[in-house]
This record gives sequence, structure tokens and C-alpha cells, in this order.
Amino acid sequence: MEKVRSQKPLIHHITNWVTIYDCANIVKVLGASPVMAHAPEEVSEMTGIASALVLNIGTLTAELICSMKIAALAANKKNIPVVLDVCGAGATKFRDDKIVELLDQTKINIIKGNASEIARVAGMDVNTKGVDSGKVDTDLTLLAQKLAEQRDCTVVITGKVDIITSKNKNFKVKNGNEIMSHVVGTGCMAASVIGTFAAVGDDLAEAACAGLCVYAIAAEQAVKLASGPGTFKQRLFDCLFCLDSATVDAKQRIE
Amino acid sequence: MEKVRSQKPLIHHITNWVTIYDCANIVKVLGASPVMAHAPEEVSEMTGIASALVLNIGTLTAELICSMKIAALAANKKNIPVVLDVCGAGATKFRDDKIVELLDQTKINIIKGNASEIARVAGMDVNTKGVDSGKVDTDLTLLAQKLAEQRDCTVVITGKVDIITSKNKNFKVKNGNEIMSHVVGTGCMAASVIGTFAAVGDDLAEAACAGLCVYAIAAEQAVKLASGPGTFKQRLFDCLFCLDSATVDAKQRIE
Amino acid sequence: MEKVRSQKPLIHHITNWVTIYDCANIVKVLGASPVMAHAPEEVSEMTGIASALVLNIGTLTAELICSMKIAALAANKKNIPVVLDVCGAGATKFRDDKIVELLDQTKINIIKGNASEIARVAGMDVNTKGVDSGKVDTDLTLLAQKLAEQRDCTVVITGKVDIITSKNKNFKVKNGNEIMSHVVGTGCMAASVIGTFAAVGDDLAEAACAGLCVYAIAAEQAVKLASGPGTFKQRLFDCLFCLDSATVDAKQRIE
Repeated sequence: MEKVRSQKPLIHHITNWVTIYDCANIVKVLGASPVMAHAPEEVSEMTGIASALVLNIGTLTAELICSMKIAALAANKKNIPVVLDVCGAGATKFRDDKIVELLDQTKINIIKGNASEIARVAGMDVNTKGVDSGKVDTDLTLLAQKLAEQRDCTVVITGKVDIITSKNKNFKVKNGNEIMSHVVGTGCMAASVIGTFAAVGDDLAEAACAGLCVYAIAAEQAVKLASGPGTFKQRLFDCLFCLDSATVDAKQRIE
Repeated sequence: MEKVRSQKPLIHHITNWVTIYDCANIVKVLGASPVMAHAPEEVSEMTGIASALVLNIGTLTAELICSMKIAALAANKKNIPVVLDVCGAGATKFRDDKIVELLDQTKINIIKGNASEIARVAGMDVNTKGVDSGKVDTDLTLLAQKLAEQRDCTVVITGKVDIITSKNKNFKVKNGNEIMSHVVGTGCMAASVIGTFAAVGDDLAEAACAGLCVYAIAAEQAVKLASGPGTFKQRLFDCLFCLDSATVDAKQRIE
Repeated sequence: MEKVRSQKPLIHHITNWVTIYDCANIVKVLGASPVMAHAPEEVSEMTGIASALVLNIGTLTAELICSMKIAALAANKKNIPVVLDVCGAGATKFRDDKIVELLDQTKINIIKGNASEIARVAGMDVNTKGVDSGKVDTDLTLLAQKLAEQRDCTVVITGKVDIITSKNKNFKVKNGNEIMSHVVGTGCMAASVIGTFAAVGDDLAEAACAGLCVYAIAAEQAVKLASGPGTFKQRLFDCLFCLDSATVDAKQRIE
């Protein structure tokens, strides 16, 4: 968290139109700089001045996927981390196909999704209810490990407990609050937080874990000051902005 | 409201880029699942797993209208309700033409707009000031009835008093608060609320009426906790999330 | 401010997808009417019923720039003010090229940006970190004057102190609060405020100055009621909505 605040990395997003503001703002309140840019003519150059790239297919189109590929290849060349939020995987064939295209044609360093999204990307026959997770009858840690091996990357499954897995490491973040599931954007913002921490960290799984822990602790503080999901989100921005390392150390429930 | 919370219907939106977050979030705080998806390659499949379709032409393009048609035809085939928010009807010829295309080429079950938008769709020579209602010198209930007959659908005119009309039924919702007119998005969210209730109701006019009443009662509660239009919107999400049926029964002013 | 509230001008925006809601809402809470519309088929007609046009290239595409040109030419013909927020100038060549196209092919009345954006548009070799200002080693007032002469327009540089310059006039607005730099959208909203005041004012520099002063005073009030950047933004809408002229006169720090 201190590294984010001192280095102020630029985080390039190509994301969805629903939570684009929240993704930008969560990066900003963390102390970093967000930039959202998707024109094919400029994404390569924009990624070139950034420290991480965050992709989210929530409101994908064929054109947007093309821009994502160009940007991801630029990120690969520069060796900065690429986070892909596989938003809505398992809801339509179009999404599933485009995710495979991105994974096959570029190097994605961190794949992030909810349980049914990750299960689908790992090849299971499950369904996602739009962008909300469907039922998944399997051990989620094993599932994450399987996909991490398949795609040689870090895998994050968000939920009541966040699971972070890479070839060598496994973490669980048990912080957070149930109210997060009643607010649109908390999942998308998680990917932005991961990207921001990955931009300044050495190990991607550790960075993702640290980011999600900080985010979830801020949520625990925010819910105490909120009277529902509307005021919660504003308080979440406030709490994340004001959070200090000592509090994170005291409150973290990482395994 | 209880049916929405227990059935958690999926509400597919193809909407505008201004209030897309608010439309998703209002569905979420009602206890249902929103999904926003507009790529022509996937809208049919996405509507196929949804329980209602909400269309809003606030930031329309020719391409977006094509996606709306595909989705509406999929909804028609599946026999789930389609809500069309005729946002900005009467502001430009392009909007008026595209609305006619949608109404002629697909079956729209609920047309929703403010007074001058509905008047224009019904064929009157009135103007809309961007997306804010212009002056309409006619009886609004008769106007709604006329359009409901013309297009064989349910018609909703939102305003100080909300008017809901179908072939056989007429309702007025007198709840709400004037502050709603000072916040961008309250009109668009009303269409999302209508779609969410229509997804679980048997009669479309009754469902629209119930949804608008619940929404307006939450607004009445929210304004008491707010210090202006900014805090009002956050409180509106909170109040809607926490609202119970007993309060709705006690506070409703439906005619 | 009173003129905005009594005349309720329509402000047409073609803007970015990140802060589009905030831009619309700030116009609304000022008492005016926002409309966001970008389809090439309708932008000319929409500008034709508006009192000002606000352009922002934050998430530009080639198509969006085409729509901006059509709208700007319609505004020029009607003689209403055009504000261009040169968001991200100096970040990519694509942005720089498209800004030159807009400035060469249409008449832009007010150019607005942060220090490094304006420096780049004025021809300096500086870089912008995405959409956040880079370092600029020059006198900003002289820089604004240079660009104002080059392009025969009013130039606004936003920052700790806002600088407003036209051929004959120079203002500085020293109101505001540092927290504004920690919230996404405060810069974009400033352009919308400028456009709203320009719609009802006679002198563009005076109108821009008045708008920015009102906005910054509301921010000063809002920060006292906020516990961080999240609650700050909601309070900013509240405070702007409730602000009165006497308070503005008492608090203004214009030079």
C-alpha cells in the first residue's frame, strides 16, 4: 500500500461501461493514477506509459476485444502485468470464445473472476447468471490451481473468501463483508485493486493478495459507517483513502 | 417486492452510458441480478437466460438500436416482458425514427417516458428539451390510454404523479418527492424497477405500478436522510435495500 | 448562478464514458439541463436546441471525434459556445492529432485542461501521465495567454489555482480544496460547469471564472462535511445545489 502511494503507478484500463467510473476511482483513492482508453489507435502507446493493464469484458464488443489484444501485446512486450477480469464467462458463447482468444493470443498474468466464471474458463460445464456467479460443485482452491497450471498464470477467485493461486503459492483472504455482494462494481474494482498492487509488487500472487486484503479491510470499516449499499460504496472510497498500514497488519486475515 | 427478492430474476439491459451504473445498481439493491450487454453477437443469448429486457435509447446509435431489435425479438420469442424507455423522444428526428422502428419491428410490452416523450410517441407535435420533459397541454391519462391502444401495450408516464395504463387498468402513483427531478438517473432507474417487477408479475400494469410505488416510497424515506441530491441518491439505494412490505402497504398512495 | 437557475439552459455533451454521469449531474444540480448524445445522425440537431456544447476527449475514438466535429460546426453556426476539455493531451500522439483536427476544423471557444495538457496543446514538449498532469516548468499564466492568442479563444488551466485567460482578461480562482485531486471526475465536471455558465453569460472568460468560483466554493463547503473522497463527491452535489449568491460573494477569492 505504501509502495502504491509513493510510486503512484499509472494503471491503464480497457473495461466495461457500467463500472468504469468505480474502477478509475478506486485506483485514484489508492493513490495511483487511472487511465481509461480503448481506441485501437492509441492503446499500445497508452499501455507503453503504464505500469499495469487491467482488462474487463463486462460490456465487450468484437472491437473492444481487438483493442484489448493490442494493449495486452504491448504490455507483454514491456513486461508489465496484465489482469483479465473474465466478467460473465459462462453466460454466453461469445464471451467464452473471446476469453479463449485473449488467453491464446496474448499473455495474461492474472485471471480474476467469481466461482462460476473461473470454473468455465477452466473448462467446466457451469453457467453464470449474467455476471453473478452460478453454483459450482467443486473445491475452489483446486479449481484455481488447475487453471493456474493450464494457463501458467496467477488465478484469483473472488467471493466470501478470496482465493489467490499461482504455481508456487496459495493464499486465502478472509476479510470483507457480505454487503459487497449487494453493490454493483465491487468485483470489477477488485480487479483494479489487483492491477494497482501488481504494478508495484514483485510477486503477482502476493501483490494480488495484499491488494484484496487492503480492499476487504476498508470494506469492513465502511460497512460500520454505512446504512446500506449506497452509502457503503462512498464510505469504501473514504476508508480506502484513509487506511494505514498498521490497521491492515492488525486486521488482516490471510491464510 | 418479496417475489423479486426470492426469485432474483436476471434483468438484461441495453441502455445508455450515462446512467448504466445506476440502472444496474437499482436492480441489485432490489435483490435481483442486472446484466448489461450490447454486442449483437451475444444479446440474443443473454436475453435468452433473462426474465425481462429493459431498453433505453438515451445515448442511442444505429448499431445499438440493431442490438436492441435482436434482443427484443429474442424476448418476444421467449415471452418475457420488454420495457422501452423512450428517452429523448421529441428531441431529434433520429430518436423519433428509431423508436418507431423498434415499435414496428418488435413487440414492446411497456413504453415508459416523461410527458413530452410519451406525447411525441403518441403522435403529438411536442418537443422534449434533451431528455427533460417539455410542456404538454393535454390530459396525461387520456394520452397514456391513447398510446396504450395504439400500440397494444402498457404505458407509463413518470412525473410528479406516475400514470400507468393498460387496456383494462389505470393506476396513479402519488408517492415520491420533488428532489428526484434534480438528480440525473431517477427516470432511467424507474424503467429498471418496472422491468424488475414485470419479470416476476403476472399483470404488467400492476407490476409497473407496484414497482414505481416501492421506488417512490424509498425516495420519500431517502429525502429525509439527505442534505441534497448527491446524498439523496445514495440514501435511495439504502432505503430501497432495507424497505419492507409493511411499510410499503402503510405508505402507498395508489389510485 | 442565478441566470443558470432561471434560464435553465440545455447543455449538450459529447464526452467520455468514465465521468459522463458526473458531467450530467453537475449540470443538473446547477439548475440547468444536460443532454448527452453522440450519434452522428443526431448531434447536429441536438446542438441546435442547446445553449452550449461541451466536448471531452477522455475516451475518444475516431468516430466520436467525427461526431464532435459535426456538433461543433452546428454550434459555430448557431453561435453558441463550445468548450473543449483536452483530456489526456500529451499522453498519446492520437490524442494530440485529434485535438489539432478539432481546433483546425472547428471554432473552439474555450480550451480547458490541466497544466501539462494545455502546455502540449500550446506546442510544448511535455508529457501527461494518462489524464493526470505532468510537470510543466513554465509560467502558467503566460502559457495560457500564448494559447489564447494562438487559437483566438479563452483558455482555462485547472489546478490548485485555476487560471482563466482571454485576449483581454486574466483571472485566477484561488478557491477549492486539495481533495478534488483525489476524486476522479472533478476536472471533467469543471468543463461542464464552465459550459453551463458560458451558456448564459456574455463574456466567456468572466463566465468561466464565475462558474469555477461557484464550483470551488461548493467544494470548500463539501470537504467540511465529508470523511474522504467518496462522501466528498456526494456532498459537492448537495452543496452546489444549495449554494446561494450571498455565500459566493462572501467566499470568492478571484484575482
